[in-house]
Amino acid sequence: MKILKHVMNNFSIRATWNWHIQDPASQRLTWNKPPKSVLVIKKIRDASLLQPFKELCVYLTEENNMIVYVEKKVLEDPAIANDDNFGPVKKKFCTFREDYDDISNQIDFIICLGGDGTLLYASSLFQGSVPPVMAFHLGSLGFLTPFNFENFQSQVTQVIEGNAALVLRSRLKVKVVKEHREKMTVQNGIEENGVVPTNIEKEGGKQIMQYQVLNEVVVDRGPSSYLSNVDVFLDGHLITTVQGDGVIVSTPTGSTAYAAAAGASMIHPNVPAIMITPICPHSLSFRPIVVPAGVELKIMLSPDARNTAWVSFDGRKRQEICHGDSISITTSCYPLPSICFRDPVSDWFESLAECLHWNVRKKQNNFAVEEEEF
Amino acid sequence: MKILKHVMNNFSIRATWNWHIQDPASQRLTWNKPPKSVLVIKKIRDASLLQPFKELCVYLTEENNMIVYVEKKVLEDPAIANDDNFGPVKKKFCTFREDYDDISNQIDFIICLGGDGTLLYASSLFQGSVPPVMAFHLGSLGFLTPFNFENFQSQVTQVIEGNAALVLRSRLKVKVVKEHREKMTVQNGIEENGVVPTNIEKEGGKQIMQYQVLNEVVVDRGPSSYLSNVDVFLDGHLITTVQGDGVIVSTPTGSTAYAAAAGASMIHPNVPAIMITPICPHSLSFRPIVVPAGVELKIMLSPDARNTAWVSFDGRKRQEICHGDSISITTSCYPLPSICFRDPVSDWFESLAECLHWNVRKKQNNFAVEEEEF
Amino acid sequence: MKILKHVMNNFSIRATWNWHIQDPASQRLTWNKPPKSVLVIKKIRDASLLQPFKELCVYLTEENNMIVYVEKKVLEDPAIANDDNFGPVKKKFCTFREDYDDISNQIDFIICLGGDGTLLYASSLFQGSVPPVMAFHLGSLGFLTPFNFENFQSQVTQVIEGNAALVLRSRLKVKVVKEHREKMTVQNGIEENGVVPTNIEKEGGKQIMQYQVLNEVVVDRGPSSYLSNVDVFLDGHLITTVQGDGVIVSTPTGSTAYAAAAGASMIHPNVPAIMITPICPHSLSFRPIVVPAGVELKIMLSPDARNTAWVSFDGRKRQEICHGDSISITTSCYPLPSICFRDPVSDWFESLAECLHWNVRKKQNNFAVEEEEF
Amino acid sequence: MKILKHVMNNFSIRATWNWHIQDPASQRLTWNKPPKSVLVIKKIRDASLLQPFKELCVYLTEENNMIVYVEKKVLEDPAIANDDNFGPVKKKFCTFREDYDDISNQIDFIICLGGDGTLLYASSLFQGSVPPVMAFHLGSLGFLTPFNFENFQSQVTQVIEGNAALVLRSRLKVKVVKEHREKMTVQNGIEENGVVPTNIEKEGGKQIMQYQVLNEVVVDRGPSSYLSNVDVFLDGHLITTVQGDGVIVSTPTGSTAYAAAAGASMIHPNVPAIMITPICPHSLSFRPIVVPAGVELKIMLSPDARNTAWVSFDGRKRQEICHGDSISITTSCYPLPSICFRDPVSDWFESLAECLHWNVRKKQNNFAVEEEEF
Repeated sequence: MKILKHVMNNFSIRATWNWHIQDPASQRLTWNKPPKSVLVIKKIRDASLLQPFKELCVYLTEENNMIVYVEKKVLEDPAIANDDNFGPVKKKFCTFREDYDDISNQIDFIICLGGDGTLLYASSLFQGSVPPVMAFHLGSLGFLTPFNFENFQSQVTQVIEGNAALVLRSRLKVKVVKEHREKMTVQNGIEENGVVPTNIEKEGGKQIMQYQVLNEVVVDRGPSSYLSNVDVFLDGHLITTVQGDGVIVSTPTGSTAYAAAAGASMIHPNVPAIMITPICPHSLSFRPIVVPAGVELKIMLSPDARNTAWVSFDGRKRQEICHGDSISITTSCYPLPSICFRDPVSDWFESLAECLHWNVRKKQNNFAVEEEEF
Repeated sequence: MKILKHVMNNFSIRATWNWHIQDPASQRLTWNKPPKSVLVIKKIRDASLLQPFKELCVYLTEENNMIVYVEKKVLEDPAIANDDNFGPVKKKFCTFREDYDDISNQIDFIICLGGDGTLLYASSLFQGSVPPVMAFHLGSLGFLTPFNFENFQSQVTQVIEGNAALVLRSRLKVKVVKEHREKMTVQNGIEENGVVPTNIEKEGGKQIMQYQVLNEVVVDRGPSSYLSNVDVFLDGHLITTVQGDGVIVSTPTGSTAYAAAAGASMIHPNVPAIMITPICPHSLSFRPIVVPAGVELKIMLSPDARNTAWVSFDGRKRQEICHGDSISITTSCYPLPSICFRDPVSDWFESLAECLHWNVRKKQNNFAVEEEEF
Repeated sequence: MKILKHVMNNFSIRATWNWHIQDPASQRLTWNKPPKSVLVIKKIRDASLLQPFKELCVYLTEENNMIVYVEKKVLEDPAIANDDNFGPVKKKFCTFREDYDDISNQIDFIICLGGDGTLLYASSLFQGSVPPVMAFHLGSLGFLTPFNFENFQSQVTQVIEGNAALVLRSRLKVKVVKEHREKMTVQNGIEENGVVPTNIEKEGGKQIMQYQVLNEVVVDRGPSSYLSNVDVFLDGHLITTVQGDGVIVSTPTGSTAYAAAAGASMIHPNVPAIMITPICPHSLSFRPIVVPAGVELKIMLSPDARNTAWVSFDGRKRQEICHGDSISITTSCYPLPSICFRDPVSDWFESLAECLHWNVRKKQNNFAVEEEEF
Repeated sequence: MKILKHVMNNFSIRATWNWHIQDPASQRLTWNKPPKSVLVIKKIRDASLLQPFKELCVYLTEENNMIVYVEKKVLEDPAIANDDNFGPVKKKFCTFREDYDDISNQIDFIICLGGDGTLLYASSLFQGSVPPVMAFHLGSLGFLTPFNFENFQSQVTQVIEGNAALVLRSRLKVKVVKEHREKMTVQNGIEENGVVPTNIEKEGGKQIMQYQVLNEVVVDRGPSSYLSNVDVFLDGHLITTVQGDGVIVSTPTGSTAYAAAAGASMIHPNVPAIMITPICPHSLSFRPIVVPAGVELKIMLSPDARNTAWVSFDGRKRQEICHGDSISITTSCYPLPSICFRDPVSDWFESLAECLHWNVRKKQNNFAVEEEEF
């Protein structure tokens, strides 16, 4: 552990914390007792995943004697429901329904099969502490899915044996406070089904919702052609007003997602920071900024705004934001521990190259031509 | 103190450190005993600074009984040397010469008068621990010079009394290892004068130089039209090759300087990170990246490079980099404690607005025009 | 007239056109006979415009004996309807309703009062030839509204006398071909009112709409969180597929509007070109491009797209684009002649500075600090 | 030929030119009489080019009976000089020396072998009219070298037979006027050899140099760490002051070269325009701009500048610019006719993809993840 030590001649710095320089390579997983229960998340409607899913479940259940949790709707897929060979395995599954059943305290370990979206989904299931996640891509490498499925047995065994590097991906805790209105619009949310989600409370005419996001909170213009002015506060002070298509508040993990598309620099997940990125801002000088993980952000419609805005959380639970509503954002106490294929640094640079083609380029002299050689 | 605590059902994370979420507002200065010696740094060749400089020195010497350190060449300015009224004050000064006299252990406190360059210069005088710095701008606000000179007396008094918020600005420790060659080219350095700087060692045919930088290390093409390929290593692994005008490795403090001009996002000084920004890269996808403060970077010419490169440190000590030379960069153990005008967050956003016009804009509808209103 | 003349030793270039180098200063307005009819367009719901509007109308009607055309709904504003003093002037107006009455052949001259939106609106009224437009801003300068209202009399008189420089702003002719579907969704369009707009034809189960746009055609993800893949064709060849928030096809005039927010370079209105700008593209290397004005572009959903897209025209007439629908874009034969305050070059650079703060900056040394001066 | 025709109700536009919408596909090469003399330009110091060079020369000389011009220093390469088999062919060559011998009126046709630099070099040899250029890349595709060398015979034959599409690449005529000073510094130029280049005139204490550039004129800080302020004038009016690393004035051809690295949008060579791109500007809002080809630009040091600047032309003839010196830039009357592999549009998009990886990307969902599918 390196500490930023200041040789203090004649002064000291009164601070409630020390400045640690973090070594991203030092985090490793330790099981307190052997993991028994594993949640398997499968991208749905992707036929190519069925065979790997079955193989994985057989391996976990029969070879490792683990209890497999699977979401109920995954098993409703006819290709699974009608597969007689898979029946005996399936019988041993524990099933649950999103937003109805809380399994967050029963899982030792999560395995994802599919794209980055499976991890965002896993994150959304755990509003508190998250068990370690091992994520397989089936096709091309994703930012959040470093493992390929070949030799999955030996790779899963290594993790079960506690032989794994971790990257703690910070999440954002987002609290939406809405004035009570007759009709609430929540797209793709369970509100539509008449079910009150577990993370919605109602108090004193207000409705309070809470979300944990792994990538980003997006406030945008929604179906309108024009964004209302949106004010951004940091620790209670107005720092700027957004005019444009919207604004993205993202984790370092999210810096390689939508924020990158909006022009942000990419931040390694081990940097304790929050990124604020405007989406197509009217002002040419509105560059993305990076603030310390410890601050509190708040977003509201500007008092003189004439349109509403829309907010979404890792691309989900899209809803309208009106005058008086507020969105508060802090770094969550519950990061997502993501199991590395190699280590936090190698995995990240590999995903930059593979997913974003970051500075991938044939060595050639397009731009510059050396005079002596032309 | 907030700590990222993970409620660990059945696993723990073997790590040599905890994840602290830093609250930028919590750092304050405490004097162990009243400060006695103060180093005053004045931008030279700026006539408008003479009067403030004299007033400040009189105030420190006569009103506060402090020992004032001033660089010798500052007093050689005829406007100071020939001012009889200033004579008695001047006599009490301690003087020193850059690169000859080491005063780094004798200073309680630094006051800068002028632009951001005075702080970069102050930083270069202290290769180890740096005393707190209070920086006045005389004209327009700088990123590093938050105080204006009006009422300087009461502001200085407050700091002397220990009433001040601090921002710890991380610095980079840069180690340049050069193969010994007959003729070394160091622009603007003391090497030219035949003086060996205190931070240059020679060992076994190698020459090792060390620098502490507050803003950035720049590797560029120098007077050539073309940069050689330059390899960037992180913790020993090659992460990318730079083709273009060069590369900037900067602190968060430096993210609002040259790196901003090269397209980087702006990072608050309290984020423990290092920024890597290409300068006019040939590859369209070579976006700036932000890595954790704890890593070690190394820059070298690519084995097949045909031109040399040039390196500079906070814009100074420019020198050529040839095959076999290397530049190693880590976060320094010696940050620069910079005294805030208000607090680390307000000061930073104010400087973004004032110095970079960040999202400063008349409220108007240039781009988007609401249909109902046209 | 300068012509790019090639001294042809032994070859010639078989081309159907010559390469003219345009001199933007050379375009001036000439009236064939004194203008008699003037269309006045006023931003609605802006109380500050009422007095200027009345003054202008009185001046045109009573001092200049011109026939003033005004849209009916402008006069329905109570502040106008109930103003007895304005009654006699109002009686002489010719009124019309948008989308019902075609006045495009009866107007000699257009005056706009308000923001840039008034000009976009004026453009939409003239699907063919457009009379010269003189645009006043009341508050801050707009890109398209160079005149300020003080001394409006002398300025209007100068134009009526034919003493005016012009900039011919190219427009895009956009043809949308939609498969016939039961329910068509056109936001903010008259389709909703059950009225078939004059520019919609139905032929053989297809519906064909045509628009003239001054700024841009935008294809975006609309209310969805995700854009479908969208294919862009140039002269019949697929040139790229857009993944991201959408794509903007703009005129040079539009390059300083939404396209600038999305990161485009700014193009002077006299450059005969079309700009293609992605909105938050997933690919880091998807930079905006500029193609010659003479090409034909076509945009369609990619065959494998699973969501729809939305298209809008200068921010209006928003509608959904489904599989099989196509959007064809060429440079229109009907540019909009916009009267300059000074000349095409001065006006443009002034609006860049005023509206976008283009390179407006206090002269100071933020980034670079000269060593000798620090 | 499409013409922007305005149906003029009651006005006409007094202009000395018409607005042509150019169709990039319409330019084709026609020989007035069969081409006899061909200049072959070969990248030097690249062993892989020797064999193709010899094959090409044999084919041109022996199969086509053409007179081959080659620069003298190309033949001084030992691998050519000592090749006895090549002797008989070599004897028939016409040779010349750069800057000594003017062959510009003797060449029907140019063939380049190597990278984009060979074309820049070819351009520099022809200060007036340029014969058509056919450019082969040997390795990876270049922006300016669309032909691959396989089947070179049939491809050369097609061109000789007049079966070729052309793109007329505009060039910039640059006039540098320098106050006479004792010592002139011209890097890499012939001035150093004591030879006055043919394009330098001396009149009345001034020295006037003229260059034709195909890509760009760059004004930068040279070996200094800081650029002086540089003023940019358009048609005699100061439009902006550059603070930063420098400024690039480029043709559309140059927009994909250094300007792209500096952040410019890419412009098709058929757009008659000049691009002005700042290099690492201090101001966040200093975006690149595109102005009509017909304007005249001038660049000078700002009156209060304290450092000098450096100018170069297509990366060559680097020289210092001091107070009083000026650089005038207009579109040249002598474009470079470049023979297309397919046609001006296909060739350009192919080179964007191959050379810049423009929006080249695996189809995958990194950023956006559809909710229903995760």
